[in-house]
Amino acid sequence: MTSIDLNADLGEGFGRWRLTDDERLLAVVTSANVACGFHAGDAATMRRVCELAAERGVRIGAQVSYRDLAGFGRRAMDVPPAELAAEVAYQIGALEVFARAAGARVAYVKPHGALYNRVVGDEEQAGAVVDGVVLADATLPVLGLPGSRLLDLAREAGLPVVTEAFADRAYTDGGTLVPRREEGAVVTDPEAVVTRSVDLARHGEVDARSGRRIAVRARSLCLHGDTPGAVELARRVRDALEASGVRVEAFA
Amino acid sequence: MTSIDLNADLGEGFGRWRLTDDERLLAVVTSANVACGFHAGDAATMRRVCELAAERGVRIGAQVSYRDLAGFGRRAMDVPPAELAAEVAYQIGALEVFARAAGARVAYVKPHGALYNRVVGDEEQAGAVVDGVVLADATLPVLGLPGSRLLDLAREAGLPVVTEAFADRAYTDGGTLVPRREEGAVVTDPEAVVTRSVDLARHGEVDARSGRRIAVRARSLCLHGDTPGAVELARRVRDALEASGVRVEAFA
Amino acid sequence: MTSIDLNADLGEGFGRWRLTDDERLLAVVTSANVACGFHAGDAATMRRVCELAAERGVRIGAQVSYRDLAGFGRRAMDVPPAELAAEVAYQIGALEVFARAAGARVAYVKPHGALYNRVVGDEEQAGAVVDGVVLADATLPVLGLPGSRLLDLAREAGLPVVTEAFADRAYTDGGTLVPRREEGAVVTDPEAVVTRSVDLARHGEVDARSGRRIAVRARSLCLHGDTPGAVELARRVRDALEASGVRVEAFA
Amino acid sequence: MTSIDLNADLGEGFGRWRLTDDERLLAVVTSANVACGFHAGDAATMRRVCELAAERGVRIGAQVSYRDLAGFGRRAMDVPPAELAAEVAYQIGALEVFARAAGARVAYVKPHGALYNRVVGDEEQAGAVVDGVVLADATLPVLGLPGSRLLDLAREAGLPVVTEAFADRAYTDGGTLVPRREEGAVVTDPEAVVTRSVDLARHGEVDARSGRRIAVRARSLCLHGDTPGAVELARRVRDALEASGVRVEAFA
Repeated sequence: MTSIDLNADLGEGFGRWRLTDDERLLAVVTSANVACGFHAGDAATMRRVCELAAERGVRIGAQVSYRDLAGFGRRAMDVPPAELAAEVAYQIGALEVFARAAGARVAYVKPHGALYNRVVGDEEQAGAVVDGVVLADATLPVLGLPGSRLLDLAREAGLPVVTEAFADRAYTDGGTLVPRREEGAVVTDPEAVVTRSVDLARHGEVDARSGRRIAVRARSLCLHGDTPGAVELARRVRDALEASGVRVEAFA
Repeated sequence: MTSIDLNADLGEGFGRWRLTDDERLLAVVTSANVACGFHAGDAATMRRVCELAAERGVRIGAQVSYRDLAGFGRRAMDVPPAELAAEVAYQIGALEVFARAAGARVAYVKPHGALYNRVVGDEEQAGAVVDGVVLADATLPVLGLPGSRLLDLAREAGLPVVTEAFADRAYTDGGTLVPRREEGAVVTDPEAVVTRSVDLARHGEVDARSGRRIAVRARSLCLHGDTPGAVELARRVRDALEASGVRVEAFA
Repeated sequence: MTSIDLNADLGEGFGRWRLTDDERLLAVVTSANVACGFHAGDAATMRRVCELAAERGVRIGAQVSYRDLAGFGRRAMDVPPAELAAEVAYQIGALEVFARAAGARVAYVKPHGALYNRVVGDEEQAGAVVDGVVLADATLPVLGLPGSRLLDLAREAGLPVVTEAFADRAYTDGGTLVPRREEGAVVTDPEAVVTRSVDLARHGEVDARSGRRIAVRARSLCLHGDTPGAVELARRVRDALEASGVRVEAFA
Repeated sequence: MTSIDLNADLGEGFGRWRLTDDERLLAVVTSANVACGFHAGDAATMRRVCELAAERGVRIGAQVSYRDLAGFGRRAMDVPPAELAAEVAYQIGALEVFARAAGARVAYVKPHGALYNRVVGDEEQAGAVVDGVVLADATLPVLGLPGSRLLDLAREAGLPVVTEAFADRAYTDGGTLVPRREEGAVVTDPEAVVTRSVDLARHGEVDARSGRRIAVRARSLCLHGDTPGAVELARRVRDALEASGVRVEAFA
């Protein structure tokens, strides 16, 4: 039986501000990418999200970011590698406290926003993120895009890697994401997102923007939780996956 | 044979800025209170200080603070207890990553600046700091002033407590520190600081401001490292302690 | 004909986060307390709110705060007076750029959150806020509670002062606000808030918590905009005021 | 008679941390690039530097930066243009308060660190900085590298532009700075820096790295103040300029 992991970003408020509907998302996903304070995520929120995730058996991941609250981690930054590695480790360690206190552990690392995009192709920063993960815990899986420098370097460093796909993003024929600035980059029709989720999970395939069917092998699907209707759509995706015979469970 | 621990604040720079002469202080002290990013201490500095401390066998402590880079943690803040507890745990966890990576562990917790002063008498905030330590690791010793609410509540929570004294601060007859705003609060004569250090370590006594000899039992002496001549004075204190037959070593 | 000013906090998002419904509030109030970046309010938001306010003829005020994004300015802080004065001036200056660019000016200053509460009775901090306002512009009105040290010291410094009242807060017989931690401190019934608003504006009177009618003279009413239904209630208050013959307009 | 402006970065501490020797630098330079809080420069320091500069007749400039205290503004950031423009204006406005309070005005704008380097060639960010300056004050001169996109776009926007040169940096035959990562990029011999300063000011020429004499026309020389011996060297440069018959004065 085929199985798939569902991950989403959680705990992306800060102090007085809320963004993600953490409680409801935790009823859908199997892996929670918890913000660690650099782009979002104050300490009290991190604690609460870890407690809720642990209660529900949802896996806790460290969603590490550039230090950029004002830009929500969406501004690419030329952080020197040694600093970036240390900042990644710092965030993982901070989250680990709350995961442990909740009876769980940080189970994987996923870069956020501009850092996520940067380490697809940037050798130096991808290496720095890997160094940071190794510094924190040399057994931690790294979650990212198949074919990214991040996953390549993580694998070389002996870290487990977990690939993910996006049902709401268009793909090129080459299997890479269509950049957001291009037309049609985001799939907005909920029906299509649901169908694509099932295609990705059951067959490891999806329709590229060209209409051509392509292979996209991924162990996890990334769901979004910060837009209106996002949680409902996530719920529908999960229901459709289960109805189609896919087991929804965290990656091993 | 009598023994004493020497502790000092380290890693109190931030990014481009440096404050403490970490390398030289590490040659003197047995316990390093490492800034964890809230009042000072960027991730790369935390990593470096932990590596140096581990190399030299200096114990690593988490110097936790209010979130206040602009005020260097010296502005008392009314942080709600649940937030304060989470912030304390966050800082301990972040430092733990670098301590472990250096082959060591966070071995104790000491509040910094305004938080240190506040938890002497503030029940709520003292309790929050204790909660934060327990959240991170319920076996971690807490370093603080004898008679403080912090140490009382830590003891009640089952945490080991370590008392400290200040050779360069005046004491009242009651054994409490003379507030900094009062005249004569700080002992500036290096000779006097050295003599008082030996008195405190060997006899558990010191001359109060009144001239009366009082008992001040402390397992650790706090040395300052952020003023001109501070490291030299710290060195002299250590030499005098050893010359007087006191063993300088980290608390058990 | 009686007239009243209506003020509310605006622009209280930060980066990715939104809190206040600025557009709709600007259709109701006559004075906008714009967050200046210390508790909320990034530069782009400040610019946008100033543009919208200027378009609609709403007066722009600097809502100055402690430097505390993580606590939304709600944590009282012992900021040394010289630093606090400079921080207040800094915020006013930053906002002035956007007010001028929109063809307007910063027309008043109102402290936010914990600073607002602190300067009711804290001589030193109230004086620091006044110093900061004078530093920025010695003709700027200060908006605050009648009887507060802030307004007393502002008056002594030659600054115009503007008193405000809260229709949704309970009053003691002495005319001061019932502290939030006490029961019944907040008036939650919308009908009551509307009635009290008209009482305050038309008669300078309101029913104290005891039931006794007391005098509360205020040139401005503070409306809240950060809770569900807040904008609707603000609209109803304004409509009721106008229906009762009160002219709703910014203070002179 | 030839004249030259001397500019240096000032006020680059933050809270407890100091970096630049502001008092001594102000005795040498004619233009002070004052940090505005985004890479360095707390409000109290900004105030003090403005007061000292005004007392000594030194011109006050806004040294605007990316929002990056942890990286001291040295990490290039992909800030969206509208945000960057607003952030530039914010910083100028904040400084203007202290300049005015000291009886002066912000007299020019100079980007700092990574932003300075970026706007040499980055059309979008150079345009955003210009937009920010215009937003704050459409008559403010912009200080930067000759041939930079920043100065080109500033000129197109009707802003006065002021060119600067670096006596302690190597130049290519094409008149651009040798990148810092290349060997010989920085001139460390004090004698050479003094000679080059006089060459630049008197003749508008300097020896390129190749040994070839090239033209570098600049209205201002940038002196550095954050390294040991920097202030002494700055003093020697000024003395040598005056001895060679160059008038050292702020640009018109």
